[in-house]
Amino acid sequence: MAEIRHDPLLNRWVILAPERAGRPQEKPGAPHGSGPGDCPFCEGNEKDTPPELWARRERRDAGADSQGWTVRVVPNRYPALTDSPPERQEQTGLLKRIQGIGAHEVIIESPGHERGLADLTPEHLQDVMEAYRLRLLAAYRDPRLAYALIFKNHKVPAGASLTHPHSQLIATPVIPQNIRLKLETALRHQAQTGGCLLCDLIRQERSGGERIISEADGFVALAPFASRFPCEVMIAPVNHISDFRDMESGSLLRLARLLKDILLRLKHALDDPPYNYFLNTAPNPAALDQGGGAAEGVRSACHWHLEILPRHTAVAGFEWGSGFHINTMAPEEAAALLDSLGIDPATRPDALPVSGYVRLAEALRPG
Amino acid sequence: MAEIRHDPLLNRWVILAPERAGRPQEKPGAPHGSGPGDCPFCEGNEKDTPPELWARRERRDAGADSQGWTVRVVPNRYPALTDSPPERQEQTGLLKRIQGIGAHEVIIESPGHERGLADLTPEHLQDVMEAYRLRLLAAYRDPRLAYALIFKNHKVPAGASLTHPHSQLIATPVIPQNIRLKLETALRHQAQTGGCLLCDLIRQERSGGERIISEADGFVALAPFASRFPCEVMIAPVNHISDFRDMESGSLLRLARLLKDILLRLKHALDDPPYNYFLNTAPNPAALDQGGGAAEGVRSACHWHLEILPRHTAVAGFEWGSGFHINTMAPEEAAALLDSLGIDPATRPDALPVSGYVRLAEALRPG
Repeated sequence: MAEIRHDPLLNRWVILAPERAGRPQEKPGAPHGSGPGDCPFCEGNEKDTPPELWARRERRDAGADSQGWTVRVVPNRYPALTDSPPERQEQTGLLKRIQGIGAHEVIIESPGHERGLADLTPEHLQDVMEAYRLRLLAAYRDPRLAYALIFKNHKVPAGASLTHPHSQLIATPVIPQNIRLKLETALRHQAQTGGCLLCDLIRQERSGGERIISEADGFVALAPFASRFPCEVMIAPVNHISDFRDMESGSLLRLARLLKDILLRLKHALDDPPYNYFLNTAPNPAALDQGGGAAEGVRSACHWHLEILPRHTAVAGFEWGSGFHINTMAPEEAAALLDSLGIDPATRPDALPVSGYVRLAEALRPG
Repeated sequence: MAEIRHDPLLNRWVILAPERAGRPQEKPGAPHGSGPGDCPFCEGNEKDTPPELWARRERRDAGADSQGWTVRVVPNRYPALTDSPPERQEQTGLLKRIQGIGAHEVIIESPGHERGLADLTPEHLQDVMEAYRLRLLAAYRDPRLAYALIFKNHKVPAGASLTHPHSQLIATPVIPQNIRLKLETALRHQAQTGGCLLCDLIRQERSGGERIISEADGFVALAPFASRFPCEVMIAPVNHISDFRDMESGSLLRLARLLKDILLRLKHALDDPPYNYFLNTAPNPAALDQGGGAAEGVRSACHWHLEILPRHTAVAGFEWGSGFHINTMAPEEAAALLDSLGIDPATRPDALPVSGYVRLAEALRPG
């Protein structure tokens, strides 16, 4: 059974999940485009996954686990965490562990094996965003779960074990370290200035402009000032929205349009790069045990955002040891590059000046 | 010119070093054992590196940058940071940057191209440890440098760009996030209990024993309770030593013996795995601007340790987004496995029960 262990030196948590060692892996050399075959995420193979948790189907009378869906959510068959064990904390001296209570779900983004997120229609991508929103809603109904992280691993170098386009949700009974650190920083900024840190940052970046990639319909895509990876992108609503669960249907479509645009630019600029993205949203108010006041403070300090990390460069000992990253490409340069690709998908590769490609190839060298 | 940028959301730093994009890479498919050739780190090619900063030679009358060395330290030709620019901080609104003052050195561990750290004699490895100590001493003479991290990337999946065995030192004008978090945790423990966190943790682990891999001559090697990777190892002195600069020659030899033993076990158990290691030592007391009292508190709270992270498993979106890791192998199992390999190098592979290998192969599947 999985458990969550506390690292006493770094005050952070690790999930110990021996069951996940048995999960299937596609062979690295397996041909793409080989069709469904054994893939449990392909349409027609619904019986190869656990029963679905949610799906979007045209036909409202179609049964669960039938064909005809566009987006489908199922429990991970090799979960890092599950909700079956009773929650139990245990501490021996300096060492704390929690039985691995949580949730681990797979959001299958498309019935087809080969169609990447960037190639879906905006309306289809909106359904993916809607799935994120609904699964966050479902996860936060359990007051034992403090946080739910939605993330995506695209391609093997970014940690994907199956090719079929999918994202995942992992919900944990503790707030993960990075989220806690961001929250602490945002609460400190709020105490000092009365404002939301990300609202203020977006305001500053929009007035400068050199790291803005694109703005549309209330959302902004920018290259973060302290980007860790070449062509890293952050997408956020311009106005304060704390919790992704509060996003309305029309907003999700506008978000989907911008996300598709950015993913297409990355695909063209970096030759369909491996990437990770993840959604930073507010923690579960029901799990914030400091009472309603704390939850309200968190709500005004959190501002949801999506981080996209292209993963061409290796992460090495310096990064692991220090938490520092070394990035070989300035975000201003990345923003200019991605900005220049934003006109017409057909002409995008040609829109990039040759010097830009050379520069990019250098920045993306491993290690 | 490199600069260090502050991430306002996560309160952490990133080094922006466009110059590093031009550094040489060995071709992934290049044959090992091809001898010196173009390798700038091989004996005979001393002219291909910047002038050496330190070297160990048998002949004391031999000149700098001549042959006949066992360990040699040179500036990195493609440095992430250098000491040339005057230090300059700049803040615009929420965004802070520092001109990239610092140091970036390469510790070439052996004159030969192919001899890994695990295969050096203990006395040779002692010279490597001595190089670490002396370069830390040199870095901390500059009061602008708050921390120096020594680390090693073994093989391409761990971020190595050149095969020739080497470690690196990067010194920064700010304390890196992970070091700062560890320091805060240790200072809190000290305030609460009066003791050193790592002293207390080692005492608890030694009394339990299930995560101890090896103990010898005042050092302990253990599998951390919240290990992030299968077969992760921590090595530390049993008694409190805050600063690696204070290590004496005899202690360095005893450390070298244990480190060699552990690296050999990992090599045999995991088939010469890619790995990173890094040294956690006390920050530069001269740079702690809170005055002598703070430096003294840091001294009693810090306890140097070396972390070794085998890198068979990919790091994916969940880890990047959350700071959480998912590990598929219990550290108790890793400790038992590595412990069982500790008798005689010649018989080590056979000492591992078959079930252990199967379990290990499963745990080490990528991402």
